[in-house]
Amino acid sequence: MQQIAPMPNEGTRSAQRRAAIVDAATTVFLRKGYPAASMDEVATLAAVSKQTVYKHFRDKETLFVHIIQGLMTSADEAIQSASDALGDSADLPRDLRALARVLLESLRRPRVLQLRRVVIGEAERFPELGRAYWDLAFQRGIDSLAKGFTRLDQRDVLTVPDPELAAQHFAGLVLWGPINHAMFYGVDDPAAAADIDRLADAGVEAFLAAYGRRSG
Amino acid sequence: MQQIAPMPNEGTRSAQRRAAIVDAATTVFLRKGYPAASMDEVATLAAVSKQTVYKHFRDKETLFVHIIQGLMTSADEAIQSASDALGDSADLPRDLRALARVLLESLRRPRVLQLRRVVIGEAERFPELGRAYWDLAFQRGIDSLAKGFTRLDQRDVLTVPDPELAAQHFAGLVLWGPINHAMFYGVDDPAAAADIDRLADAGVEAFLAAYGRRSG
Repeated sequence: MQQIAPMPNEGTRSAQRRAAIVDAATTVFLRKGYPAASMDEVATLAAVSKQTVYKHFRDKETLFVHIIQGLMTSADEAIQSASDALGDSADLPRDLRALARVLLESLRRPRVLQLRRVVIGEAERFPELGRAYWDLAFQRGIDSLAKGFTRLDQRDVLTVPDPELAAQHFAGLVLWGPINHAMFYGVDDPAAAADIDRLADAGVEAFLAAYGRRSG
Repeated sequence: MQQIAPMPNEGTRSAQRRAAIVDAATTVFLRKGYPAASMDEVATLAAVSKQTVYKHFRDKETLFVHIIQGLMTSADEAIQSASDALGDSADLPRDLRALARVLLESLRRPRVLQLRRVVIGEAERFPELGRAYWDLAFQRGIDSLAKGFTRLDQRDVLTVPDPELAAQHFAGLVLWGPINHAMFYGVDDPAAAADIDRLADAGVEAFLAAYGRRSG
């Protein structure tokens, strides 16, 4: 036991430092934007040396992509689990409404909106960030939805000839208004927040009308 | 004639200067972003004095809002005229497909995408810009679509209980994938460009399935 003790301690300290760096970097990047954020500032806020930051993350881009991944993973897990639930759904409208709410809640989280703003704002100067977001966040969400819709098609509950397209349509019906409103107006508008459930349900209703099995 | 000659000349020179300022400011704001752009730079590029810039535009924000208005007016006119055409449409699927293409073309113009990126990127630090874009661009587009769908409901061609909601659904079905792709990936991807017509048509098909009159 004495022999292996130093290893986990080392690992733990290293992991703690890494977590502190990611935490600090998330704060710095989201507050300052990508170009203005510096590795120096991240190191200072994380209370580690700049060398330690570079030991964990090769460069600023790698660190930022890691932040995208970190912030979007919890969103993606929620979307994935709500999409998986569709596969065995006994009450499809109810479960689609739940999925719509999960999508809206995941993407309207202030840090996710901030991240989206930073990435979009810099996508022309730093195309690799836009592409990382697309792959790690946008496309992953679409893939999760598509998997759920594939199962519903197999079960003959919906008619979904192109699951990825259906996923884009579901997302578009539910998210277009609210996410654009959040992007341009922010999420502090109480009227918009109160309207979210109505828009989620209306999006689901339109989706079911478009993709539901026609009787007969 | 001699008496009124100086006035139009004055007016013309002033209008030319104003146009030069707007042109220069569009270039500077879209290239540098809002915070980094300076009125000095705009004046230099427009070959006028800084005083002249301020004579025409009270401050940087006023100038930027004017640019939003300018860039989005031509997009809005195209959307409005394609929406108006729906009112008397003799071939609704065809005219909706045309409208979907107009929406996509208007919003995928490089300068419009750049503007959208700048505004979204700064909407937290400069909320008045986000709100100006929402009112002058986003909401105006939705209003134009809603007017077209109202007429289609009145003619009993579609069932549209809530025209603004239907407008959001139409936009979401057609735009969610392509505009997000353009935001994160840019419009230089030839595969995405080739896919645009298919996505436009598929969005229209889903919309018609959701909002079309059921026979019987």
